[in-house]
Amino acid sequence: MRGAILYGPRDVRFEEREFPKVIKPTDAVIKISDACVCGSDLWPYRGIQPIAQPTPMGHEYCGIVEEVGSAVESVKPGQFVIGSFFASDNTCSTCEIGYQSSCQHRELVGGAQAPFLRVPLADGTLVTTPDTPSEDLIPSLLTLSDVMGTGWFAADAANVKPGSTVVVVGDGAVGLLGVLSAKQMGARRIIAMSRHESRQKLAREFGATDIVAERGENGVTRINELTNGIGADSVLECVGTQESMRQAISSTRPGGYIGFVGVPHGVELNGEQLFFSHVHMHGGPAPVRRYLPELIKLVLSGKINPGKVFDLTLPLDRVAEGYRAMDERRAIKTLLHP
Amino acid sequence: MRGAILYGPRDVRFEEREFPKVIKPTDAVIKISDACVCGSDLWPYRGIQPIAQPTPMGHEYCGIVEEVGSAVESVKPGQFVIGSFFASDNTCSTCEIGYQSSCQHRELVGGAQAPFLRVPLADGTLVTTPDTPSEDLIPSLLTLSDVMGTGWFAADAANVKPGSTVVVVGDGAVGLLGVLSAKQMGARRIIAMSRHESRQKLAREFGATDIVAERGENGVTRINELTNGIGADSVLECVGTQESMRQAISSTRPGGYIGFVGVPHGVELNGEQLFFSHVHMHGGPAPVRRYLPELIKLVLSGKINPGKVFDLTLPLDRVAEGYRAMDERRAIKTLLHP
Repeated sequence: MRGAILYGPRDVRFEEREFPKVIKPTDAVIKISDACVCGSDLWPYRGIQPIAQPTPMGHEYCGIVEEVGSAVESVKPGQFVIGSFFASDNTCSTCEIGYQSSCQHRELVGGAQAPFLRVPLADGTLVTTPDTPSEDLIPSLLTLSDVMGTGWFAADAANVKPGSTVVVVGDGAVGLLGVLSAKQMGARRIIAMSRHESRQKLAREFGATDIVAERGENGVTRINELTNGIGADSVLECVGTQESMRQAISSTRPGGYIGFVGVPHGVELNGEQLFFSHVHMHGGPAPVRRYLPELIKLVLSGKINPGKVFDLTLPLDRVAEGYRAMDERRAIKTLLHP
Repeated sequence: MRGAILYGPRDVRFEEREFPKVIKPTDAVIKISDACVCGSDLWPYRGIQPIAQPTPMGHEYCGIVEEVGSAVESVKPGQFVIGSFFASDNTCSTCEIGYQSSCQHRELVGGAQAPFLRVPLADGTLVTTPDTPSEDLIPSLLTLSDVMGTGWFAADAANVKPGSTVVVVGDGAVGLLGVLSAKQMGARRIIAMSRHESRQKLAREFGATDIVAERGENGVTRINELTNGIGADSVLECVGTQESMRQAISSTRPGGYIGFVGVPHGVELNGEQLFFSHVHMHGGPAPVRRYLPELIKLVLSGKINPGKVFDLTLPLDRVAEGYRAMDERRAIKTLLHP
């Protein structure tokens, strides 16, 4: 079997790898229907997050169960399943309150940019669909594994409610799906911060009512003007830099909420500023497993179509090209056909 | 009229000051029933927060309305009133969602360690009691002006619910009243972090079920042991130092809540650590005005007795002694009789 392996900065290769197998009785192996490249894959790809050794890439997945370990009870071969990038037991006290991505027995899932994938803790991690979904729904279902679940968590953590005014910082796939999530949760006004025409267009399609192209001081001023000088009820921080976090805090009204899902790289928050800003902050790796049942229903019923974030589709063996297109911001997100 | 004036580090004087008067039509002047020294007064007293000029001190107050401006409608001379340390209009969109301490027209109230006090925005700031309360209730009512309102906000921001496990970091008056607030909100387990016997005793009286005297790494380990290795549902950060914030974050379970009310001094939060901790954070200057009606009822009905935090009572002219006793941690909180 061949899959994507990262060797170092901007060096992704499609190479022979060991075929995944059931190692623990709680494992499952699935046949990947579609794979994709995540924005967070770009951190190691760009060398910002160094890797110690050649690393199999990909953590977003859906597909057909191929084999299960002897202890697996809730899924069986032949079923279509979706899981989170963090495998979870879904029974510990942390999972019980809906934080499966901090599960006390969590394991990172890795190597999904390949035809087959081993998923640990299958019972707690995988969610089945009622039937095998049609081809055209696969891209949308695939997004639920991470990027859509993360956008949804951002909106949920930012307390988006019917009637809310929302700012979304970041026009990557997560930010765009944050727009879609806020719309679905009933936001009245959704301000997307974006400087790229194709992304602005998709943001509008997903429900953005306003686009702010300015950044830095000008970005803060513009948001201020659009929110009666107060700031937004809910701000989704979908980047993870000092600049984006500063933008998020400055864009939130006192008593408002920030949902931050961009993995912070070199971000420091000043305690005093946070104190006097009076904002609520919540974020982290999205507890995708919590949202899967609800989001699967929304996709299958046609209420949301998050698969639209894929604007480049390639055969899996051209994975390196998929990374390159995203790195150069020529593509929002790359879908990979095994 | 004589009142407390801070001249510099550890230099509080009781000196002649101008008699407060109605300056704007929205002002009231009140005759102070009792005054007190706040933990936050110790920041400038210790020189950690420098002052530009001699500063009238005191921002916690209750008393009898002496005079009102022509635009004041909701209070009249002779009524007993309590207000917040931030005056607020209580009508702007920030007040409307309960963040009166970030009111768009807020003004700091200052100079309450004196027989009379000018309160701006009287209609939005002052809350009356049904009758003039008896002498013995004055200390408890006085605490609602800041310290009790702040402990209550800490518990509220930390999402304390019936059955919650709570950690309170800080055994100053705010921390102790955070314990009382958590108890009143139905917490099942309240772990107070305190190394001082008199404060441990009061914490237990207010509802603490456990005391942890350890700090630093040992403090984190001990809290971990007491919370099944997970951390608490709710953590009240009532100090405002890097060390106390670190303790708070380390003591909170993933998905749990931190309410932080200690004014941060030199606190920096690492974005990545906050992200992976999966905690909710909310804090700031307590919106005391939001809680006043409810807390007044709780005091008048005898359900809470926050006035117990006063363990030193002095005549107002000995205010300097009151600061000294708190600075040296001989007193938890000093009550001052005009």
